[in-house]
Amino acid sequence: MKNYSVILLWSIILCSYSSFAQANSTSVTEDFKPSTVNQPGQEYPQVNSQGYARFQIVAPEAKSVVVSLGLGGAKGGTVLNKSEDGIWKGTTAGAMDEGFHYYHVTIDGGVFNDPGALNFYGSTRWESGIEIPAHDKDFYALKDVAHGNVQQILFPSKSTNTSRRAFVYTPPGYHKDKSKQYPVVYLQHGWGEDETAWSNQGHVNLIMDNLIAEGKIKPFIIVMTYGMTNDVKYGGMASFRIEPFQTVLVDELIPYIDSNFRTIATQAGRAMAGLSMGGMETHTITLNKPDVFSHYALLSGGIYKPEEIKDKSKVKLIFISCGSRENPEKVQSAVKGLKDAGYNAVAYISENTAHEFLTWRRSFKEMAPLLFK
Amino acid sequence: MKNYSVILLWSIILCSYSSFAQANSTSVTEDFKPSTVNQPGQEYPQVNSQGYARFQIVAPEAKSVVVSLGLGGAKGGTVLNKSEDGIWKGTTAGAMDEGFHYYHVTIDGGVFNDPGALNFYGSTRWESGIEIPAHDKDFYALKDVAHGNVQQILFPSKSTNTSRRAFVYTPPGYHKDKSKQYPVVYLQHGWGEDETAWSNQGHVNLIMDNLIAEGKIKPFIIVMTYGMTNDVKYGGMASFRIEPFQTVLVDELIPYIDSNFRTIATQAGRAMAGLSMGGMETHTITLNKPDVFSHYALLSGGIYKPEEIKDKSKVKLIFISCGSRENPEKVQSAVKGLKDAGYNAVAYISENTAHEFLTWRRSFKEMAPLLFK
Repeated sequence: MKNYSVILLWSIILCSYSSFAQANSTSVTEDFKPSTVNQPGQEYPQVNSQGYARFQIVAPEAKSVVVSLGLGGAKGGTVLNKSEDGIWKGTTAGAMDEGFHYYHVTIDGGVFNDPGALNFYGSTRWESGIEIPAHDKDFYALKDVAHGNVQQILFPSKSTNTSRRAFVYTPPGYHKDKSKQYPVVYLQHGWGEDETAWSNQGHVNLIMDNLIAEGKIKPFIIVMTYGMTNDVKYGGMASFRIEPFQTVLVDELIPYIDSNFRTIATQAGRAMAGLSMGGMETHTITLNKPDVFSHYALLSGGIYKPEEIKDKSKVKLIFISCGSRENPEKVQSAVKGLKDAGYNAVAYISENTAHEFLTWRRSFKEMAPLLFK
Repeated sequence: MKNYSVILLWSIILCSYSSFAQANSTSVTEDFKPSTVNQPGQEYPQVNSQGYARFQIVAPEAKSVVVSLGLGGAKGGTVLNKSEDGIWKGTTAGAMDEGFHYYHVTIDGGVFNDPGALNFYGSTRWESGIEIPAHDKDFYALKDVAHGNVQQILFPSKSTNTSRRAFVYTPPGYHKDKSKQYPVVYLQHGWGEDETAWSNQGHVNLIMDNLIAEGKIKPFIIVMTYGMTNDVKYGGMASFRIEPFQTVLVDELIPYIDSNFRTIATQAGRAMAGLSMGGMETHTITLNKPDVFSHYALLSGGIYKPEEIKDKSKVKLIFISCGSRENPEKVQSAVKGLKDAGYNAVAYISENTAHEFLTWRRSFKEMAPLLFK
C-alpha cells in the first residue's frame, strides 16, 4: 500500500509544476491551429508552434471560467476573460510540454469538460484532452501503412462474477496468416485511467503499426484490461489490493487470450508492462508469478532490485523508464544495479517530459524492439 | 438532397414532443437509482421505476442550470434549482420514454455535458446519455454467454486519401473455427452520429451475442463505418452527397473486409441496413448496387417502392421499421405494397418509442433472424 500512495503523491507533485517547457515572457506567435484531438469540426482549443494553448468557452452569463492547464491562474490554471462577443477566451502564460495533457474547465465553481475537445478517461472520469505537437510525433502518427486492429473482448471472470472488458491489439496480417502464433504483452494503464488509455491517449496501435512497417520489431499481440477490481469506490486507492486483479489477469484473462487468439502460450512468449500504477502492478505480479512472464517493463512505475527476484534465469528482460522531469537518476541507478547483478536490463529516459503520455509513448517505442528476441 | 432534409426535420419535430411516455401529475416514486450509463462511481443522474430522471449538477456560483431533457423548462428541458448545499437539483416533470436518450446541460448560457454521465456521439458532438430501463431490456443486457468481439479497423481509402475507421463485430467462436465463413451486414448510423453509435448506444454486439446464445440466428459479421465524407464541415447536411460515401463503402471497405475477414464474399452473403440517415443511404446504395447487396433494411429511415427496384430476383429481403410514435402507417403501407408486388418484405413497429435508439435496438433484434436464411 505504502508504495502506491508514495508514487501517486509523487506523480501529482511532479505534474503540478512540470508541465511547462518554458515559463517565460516571450512574445506569442500567432499561428494557432485546432488541437488534433478536438471534437470533429471544433476550432478550439488551439495550439501554436511554440506550444501555447488557447481556449474559447461559450458561457455568456457565467461569472468565472478557468481552464486547469497553464500557469497564472487560480490553482495553476488559465483564467479566461469574457470578450465583447460574450465568449470566454484565454491563452496559457507559457508553452506546454510536448505531448498529451488532460484538463477540465471550472465554470462558476463547477467542473466540466471543454465542449471543443475529445474526452479521455483519466482521474477516474472522462476528461478533456489536448495535444501539443511533439517534435518526434511521427512515430505515433497515422500513416499509410498496414494497420493492426484493436478489438474489444468481453471475457468471463468467475472471481468478480461478471464479463470484464479488455482490448486486444492484433498486428497487421493476423487475420490472413491463419497458422502464425504471436507472443503477448499484457500492458497496464495508470491510476484513474482504464483499459482505453493505451489506445486512446497512447496511440499504442499506431506505434506498433509504424514499428512493424519499418521492420523494427517482430509483431506481437497486446492485451489491455482494467487494472482494478474495487468497483464500489471506483478507482479508490485506499481499498486497493493487488490479489483480486492478479487473479483476473493470470487465472482468467491469460487463459482466455491463449484459447481465443493465436498466441505463443508460454512464459517465454509473455511480457507484462505498465505505466505508473500499472508499473507497480507489473512489479508485484511478475515477482509473484515468475513462471508466467519472462519480460518485465516499468514505465514511470518504480524499479526492480536484484534481491527481489527469486530466479534470475527466468527473467529475459527488465526495461525501466521515466521522463527526464521525473526521477531519472533512480531509474539509471536501478538499471546499473540490475546489470551489475547480471540481468539484461535497459533504462530509457524521455527528454523534457514528466509523468505524462509522451513519456509512455516514447518508452513503449523504445521497449518494443527489445521484446521476445 | 430534399429527402434527407425532410427526414431530418421530421426527426427533430418528432423528438421534441414525443420523448414522454406520460405527461402527468402523478406522485413521484422515491426509488431513484443511478443511470446504467453513468460514469464509473457517479451517483447522478438517476432514474426511478416510473421512468422519471433526476439530475444534480455542482456549479455553486452559476445563475442558471437547465437540462435539455424533460418537460416544463426553457426549450422543453428541466430547470434545476439550487439547493442549500449549493448543488443544482431537479427531476423531469414526467416519465421519459423507455430506452436511451441524449442530453446536455445549459449552464449560464453555455452548453456542456453532465459530468456524471457517459458521453455518446450524437448531434455531431459527444453528448451526455441516460438510460431509462425498458421492460424488455433483457435482450440487450450483458449476460453470461459467449461474447463476440468488436474490433476497430483502419482501412485504406484512396478516394478520401486517408485511413478510415470502421468497427467490425465478429461472432463468438470466430477466432476458434478457422475455416468457417460468415455473411456480413453493413450497418449505418444516423445523422450526427458516427461509427461508434451502433455499439455504444445500440449495444448491437450484446444483442447479437444473446440471439446467438439462444440459437435464434445464424451468426454473421457486422461492419459499421462513418457514413459521411464531407469532413470540412463535419456532419453538415447541406453539402452531403451520397456518391463519395458509396465509393468508400462499395469500392474500398467491402473489398478490405472480404480480404481480411472470413466472409461469404457474394451478393447473397451481404446485407445493408441503416437507421434514419443511414436508412436513406441504404435505400440509395442498395438501389444503385443491386449486385452487391441482397438484403435491405431501413430503420426509421424511409421506405422502398416496388417501382424503384430494377431486378426483383436479386432482392432476398426488405425489412422496414420505425417507432410507433413516428410514422407506422407509412411503414405498414409500404410493406404491404412490396408484398403485393411479390417481395419478401417485413414491417416492424416498436411500441411506445419514437426516433430513438430503443426503436433501433428492437428493430435490429427483429431483423437479425430474418437475414441470410
